[in-house]
Amino acid sequence: MISEKPYVLNRWYEYMDKHDFTILDELLAEEVVFHSPVVHTPQRGKKITKIYLMAAEKVLGAGDFVYTKEITSNQQIMLEFTTVIDGVTINGVDIVTYNDNNQITEFKVMVRPLQGMQKLHQQMMEMLENFKK
Amino acid sequence: MISEKPYVLNRWYEYMDKHDFTILDELLAEEVVFHSPVVHTPQRGKKITKIYLMAAEKVLGAGDFVYTKEITSNQQIMLEFTTVIDGVTINGVDIVTYNDNNQITEFKVMVRPLQGMQKLHQQMMEMLENFKK
Repeated sequence: MISEKPYVLNRWYEYMDKHDFTILDELLAEEVVFHSPVVHTPQRGKKITKIYLMAAEKVLGAGDFVYTKEITSNQQIMLEFTTVIDGVTINGVDIVTYNDNNQITEFKVMVRPLQGMQKLHQQMMEMLENFKK
Repeated sequence: MISEKPYVLNRWYEYMDKHDFTILDELLAEEVVFHSPVVHTPQRGKKITKIYLMAAEKVLGAGDFVYTKEITSNQQIMLEFTTVIDGVTINGVDIVTYNDNNQITEFKVMVRPLQGMQKLHQQMMEMLENFKK
């Protein structure tokens, strides 16, 4: 069965392709919750979620980033990705839930292996410092 | 759209529910590849994959383990789970690919947050030692 991709997914790919952060303003619901791969505590709201996603895009999206798998059903999307940063492979997933208005209400990221998580953590801390300046 | 669950998924839930390891013999393809959340190098083949899955089930499946999300399409399954071990929350995903014979060809696990991965790593090392005895 080949089904059409959800609108949210097409727009997400467009965002990743064009690095156009204004697409996030359209895609994120006001009440969106972001779950980091590293930290337990969720980040709540559109403003902080946008900052985390922009920082993640800057860190992960450079170089060899590629999505390798997509699974979609019932307004839920799982995208698997791989990239290499400083010679360290990072393999991860974006797990996205969206609402009837095609706005993302939950965005969760997990990564493997341990070495990849440590590398991502270090780079994200530095990038978030830059965004807060 | 409510669609019927894939056969593989129903059998997987049965395995997790009954702790019946013989179901793994049926569900795993000979050439199955297992990807650990912690280590980069894949584990290849039915024998070693079964050992890892049994150890993971023993470690994660005890206590508060619950699947919280399932996304399925095109012979791919993503299951999200949560459990608590020694007071540490482990949130993770199983990413499963199966073939036309309803046998699993790839099984990948990712977990978050960092503290959860560290706890899982430590417990898995101990459990795998027991299995190898």
